[in-house]
Amino acid sequence: MIKITLPDGSIKEHQNGVTPMEVAKGISEGLARNVISASFNGVTVESTTPLTEDGSLVLYTWKDKDGKKAFWHSTSHIVAQALEELYPGIKLTIGPAIENGFYYDVDFGEQSISEKDFPAIEKKVLEIARGKHDYKMRSVTKAEALALYKDQGNEYKVELIENLEDGTITFCDHSSFTDLCRGGHIPNTGIVKAVKILSVAGAYWRGDENNKQLTRVYGISFPKQKELTEYLELLEEAKKRDHRKLGKELELFTFSKKVGQGLPLWLPKGAALRERLEQFLKKAQKKAGYEMVVTPHIGQKELYVTSGHYAKYGEDSFQPIHTPKDDEEFLLKPMNCPHHCEIYNSSPFSYKDLPKRYAEFGTVYRYEQSGELHGLTRVRGFTQDDAHIFCTPNQLNDEFKKVIDLSLYVLGSLGFENFTAQVSVRDMEKPEKYIGDADNWEKAEQAIINAAEEKGLNFEIESGEAAFYGPKLDFMVKDALGRQWQLGTIQVDYNLPERFDLTYKGSDNDLHRPIMIHRAPFGSMERFVALLLEHTGGNFPLWLIPTQAIVLPVSEKHEKYAEKVLNSLENHEIRALIDDRNETVGKKIREAELKKIPFMLIVGEQEEEAQTISVRRHGGEDFGSISISKFSDLVSTEINSTLKSF
Amino acid sequence: MIKITLPDGSIKEHQNGVTPMEVAKGISEGLARNVISASFNGVTVESTTPLTEDGSLVLYTWKDKDGKKAFWHSTSHIVAQALEELYPGIKLTIGPAIENGFYYDVDFGEQSISEKDFPAIEKKVLEIARGKHDYKMRSVTKAEALALYKDQGNEYKVELIENLEDGTITFCDHSSFTDLCRGGHIPNTGIVKAVKILSVAGAYWRGDENNKQLTRVYGISFPKQKELTEYLELLEEAKKRDHRKLGKELELFTFSKKVGQGLPLWLPKGAALRERLEQFLKKAQKKAGYEMVVTPHIGQKELYVTSGHYAKYGEDSFQPIHTPKDDEEFLLKPMNCPHHCEIYNSSPFSYKDLPKRYAEFGTVYRYEQSGELHGLTRVRGFTQDDAHIFCTPNQLNDEFKKVIDLSLYVLGSLGFENFTAQVSVRDMEKPEKYIGDADNWEKAEQAIINAAEEKGLNFEIESGEAAFYGPKLDFMVKDALGRQWQLGTIQVDYNLPERFDLTYKGSDNDLHRPIMIHRAPFGSMERFVALLLEHTGGNFPLWLIPTQAIVLPVSEKHEKYAEKVLNSLENHEIRALIDDRNETVGKKIREAELKKIPFMLIVGEQEEEAQTISVRRHGGEDFGSISISKFSDLVSTEINSTLKSF
Repeated sequence: MIKITLPDGSIKEHQNGVTPMEVAKGISEGLARNVISASFNGVTVESTTPLTEDGSLVLYTWKDKDGKKAFWHSTSHIVAQALEELYPGIKLTIGPAIENGFYYDVDFGEQSISEKDFPAIEKKVLEIARGKHDYKMRSVTKAEALALYKDQGNEYKVELIENLEDGTITFCDHSSFTDLCRGGHIPNTGIVKAVKILSVAGAYWRGDENNKQLTRVYGISFPKQKELTEYLELLEEAKKRDHRKLGKELELFTFSKKVGQGLPLWLPKGAALRERLEQFLKKAQKKAGYEMVVTPHIGQKELYVTSGHYAKYGEDSFQPIHTPKDDEEFLLKPMNCPHHCEIYNSSPFSYKDLPKRYAEFGTVYRYEQSGELHGLTRVRGFTQDDAHIFCTPNQLNDEFKKVIDLSLYVLGSLGFENFTAQVSVRDMEKPEKYIGDADNWEKAEQAIINAAEEKGLNFEIESGEAAFYGPKLDFMVKDALGRQWQLGTIQVDYNLPERFDLTYKGSDNDLHRPIMIHRAPFGSMERFVALLLEHTGGNFPLWLIPTQAIVLPVSEKHEKYAEKVLNSLENHEIRALIDDRNETVGKKIREAELKKIPFMLIVGEQEEEAQTISVRRHGGEDFGSISISKFSDLVSTEINSTLKSF
Repeated sequence: MIKITLPDGSIKEHQNGVTPMEVAKGISEGLARNVISASFNGVTVESTTPLTEDGSLVLYTWKDKDGKKAFWHSTSHIVAQALEELYPGIKLTIGPAIENGFYYDVDFGEQSISEKDFPAIEKKVLEIARGKHDYKMRSVTKAEALALYKDQGNEYKVELIENLEDGTITFCDHSSFTDLCRGGHIPNTGIVKAVKILSVAGAYWRGDENNKQLTRVYGISFPKQKELTEYLELLEEAKKRDHRKLGKELELFTFSKKVGQGLPLWLPKGAALRERLEQFLKKAQKKAGYEMVVTPHIGQKELYVTSGHYAKYGEDSFQPIHTPKDDEEFLLKPMNCPHHCEIYNSSPFSYKDLPKRYAEFGTVYRYEQSGELHGLTRVRGFTQDDAHIFCTPNQLNDEFKKVIDLSLYVLGSLGFENFTAQVSVRDMEKPEKYIGDADNWEKAEQAIINAAEEKGLNFEIESGEAAFYGPKLDFMVKDALGRQWQLGTIQVDYNLPERFDLTYKGSDNDLHRPIMIHRAPFGSMERFVALLLEHTGGNFPLWLIPTQAIVLPVSEKHEKYAEKVLNSLENHEIRALIDDRNETVGKKIREAELKKIPFMLIVGEQEEEAQTISVRRHGGEDFGSISISKFSDLVSTEINSTLKSF
């Protein structure tokens, strides 16, 4: 008999050689139906692997990340089999699961595939899947393994096997198909009910551009057809909402090859939107007692050696800037904190002066490889809505609550309602990983947890996720497509005050170390605008959107009146345009809809006579013919419903 | 007989060998009394030099820059003589005139001088001057010259002479003193009526730190004692108004050794002041049809090769930034224009879309040697209030006028009333120096001159002062101390549109080149704030000053009422503080005066009872006891008197 410990701590006695699936059946038939993969003592096993010693067992279903991983990896085996059947003579290499789905890298030799071939492949995959073939792992000797693939003339598998140790090599069989494989599969192919080949791309063998280019076949699969349909709809919607596409359509930003990759140029509409976001936060920050500062975008290398950033990023980032005489070295600033520490250090403070809250829309530069760059979410230069709070240990709880208040205000004003928080604390078993006094850590973690509780946040505590220099709280936001984004970190820091020898005079007249809080509710202007674009699909909150209304004269005759309306809107501080092209109102409305303009104001004979405007909301709602001042009230009411006062 | 042409074009016939002084006498005795130096055919001559050929003569008086130069250089001879008499055995080297006064570099050997010795030196100089000794130039052979200084053991003069060609060497004698000298003196020492030795400093022989360190003796002299007194008063006032001193006292900015020299850190009060200046200009620019953009602080080297900036600044500026793989090169941006050209290039424009006016508070970085750095006026990173206007040739005149309007609005709102303009045009005799079509140049110059005339500017046209890529207009502002600052250039540019291949579609459907205008009314935020500090002595216009009013409770009893007053002021959008320290009102007033706070609001028994405040203006004016809303009116009225609407 062996002892199997389950995640809830319960221990079950089983016959030596029991499989995870059998353990599941022992618990309930329902669970067993859903189990698709397992791990035993931290190692991935098959649901059919015999367990031969005491240990901890975790059973995975489709709902678990590891369950999906097994599901998708297993599907890649079926795809490989389908490809071999459809394209005889191809050479298979590797086929792992990825974040969404899987891929298989294939050497097609003289053959090739393209999008038009995808349906046939999908059909073949489902045909095989329906056979309900079990996945069976078996150990083979290195010699046997090499013999098989040498026989097939597959130099890739041969290379893989040559790097493995004899005695550790396993094959996985299903149906008539065999593949070199470490394991981690679902019980049988029948669970795969829906599959989609998504794309093909070139990929070098082992990621090395000196090697042969293979064809990477991307796909995804699901246990239900409905889930695939939903996923494809989401994909379609995400494509429409891609911030790179919308940013171009709405003329918010652009990139220039000459200026450089990953360095966005903000066009007038984007720059104005950004300015509104900045003014919005500046106003709230002013009320919350922040003071703005301005610091340069470079600093001496020495500064970042002091802060520790050079040791951490130096080698992998933009290299030092030399002077003509080569007697000084500067770095593009990767973070604003060292500069703010130097501002703090420029004058002496007493405990009565604290907290000091220095805020800056500070642009920082960090090197990213060109392949990693992505629109505004992964760039080489970005502007953080940064602030650093220097406070006494006693002020930490209160300051933390104030930062949460500000973050919630920011999220609410921008239409994010679906969010949770994560509090990252020490791993109590590894105290050597952290700097700073244990007492202070204890206080700081308690301060964060208390603050999160008092503010009624829906939060989880993650042990061991704290940075080495302090605990933190992250907001996790779900966007309109249900995708999760990390937004707004509040980080406690014991490290920089130490490194920069920051002090304040306490009530005891002695010098003490302040605690530092880093925080950025937006994160960065670039990433936030990208997220906002994808969340809203470009239908920004009314207070933020570049053009709030467009005046549409029915014909040339009404242009003068349209101009008058425009002037009046400007006096009401409504951002409006006029579309006086010689087009039908229908066409103008359709185009305004595409441009996501919230209000279309149609002016013709009747409106001019009554000195009104006919108001149509983006999406179709009709407010009828009303006066401009009534329309202005409408706009104010909508704005005030989102943009509450802080 | 020879023909002497005077600056007004008149030609006088004179005996061969006539001296400039004699020519002056021929014109008027009054002129002759004032003439102190001259140039003949573009070469500096003595007023006593015999003229032996036809040529153009310019006579200089104390009012001319060249006159002052001769005056100060001549004084340096007297100072050298005085030093030799007071400190026998010293070795003289060189003694030129500088912008304000002169210096003489001396090897004092074992001796040394300090401030306490200055009066004795001044006394000796005036003693010599009163002897009315003529300055007499004479040619010597190289052998004679070397013999004299070898005899004296003066290795410095020997080195100078060794580098001169025989036949070109001259000495200047006055009284018993002789010095190696190229010329450019006043007629005699008697004109020097007042002298001040200002300071001594170390200076390496020939500016090379491997050479011996000499003592540089700085001084200044005047033809009237009164002028010296005035100059010293100005110097004293300038010291008080030094923006580096005021910037520290008013807590506007600081520098950090760790961040680096010439890289200002804006403290909260300075950053807020800067933000007010930016918002002020943004508002006016918005009305003037500008659109804000935001661009990164780096760009690929390629970008600046295209713009020509790399060829011009590359070697002498911050060196390229390399990536970890060393496959890309970036530069800190020295100017915003290349980025704005790339924004223009990101979408096609027709003549109907122009002008496009892109504005950005763009921070640029340019290397300056550490010795050249000076507070905020000479820095390594600064933020330009930059904008680039892209227009058709037909729009140039109109756009230019609009930029002048904006510049005048900016100058007026900041209290600068004393300014002139300089229009810099081509040197018509050197067309090869300029790029772009001559017709366009003609039009552009005419457009600028017309604009300046139409706007009623007090301007001068400077031929040959245009940049190679276009004509320009500079505003020259006199500050409160009468010092001239160049502020706000408006530059026409034919070069960048060419280099970036900028186009627009004309009404003829063909592609045309737009013209570009660069302009920056402030110049840079750093330099402008420095100028404003020195101009106002820290007494900024009321709309701009960090703290507009300070509430001074008479005693602890009135603190609560003082808080109430503060709240009420905040509601009136008046930036106010409270001074609730346990000090006398007299002391609080004195300190508020030092801090340049415009209004002191005293609240005691009477004020609390009557719900008023006793208002005292910085400098002493008493407005008596008035209500807060009346005070608010007072503030608004004063603000509106400076900050007119645009």
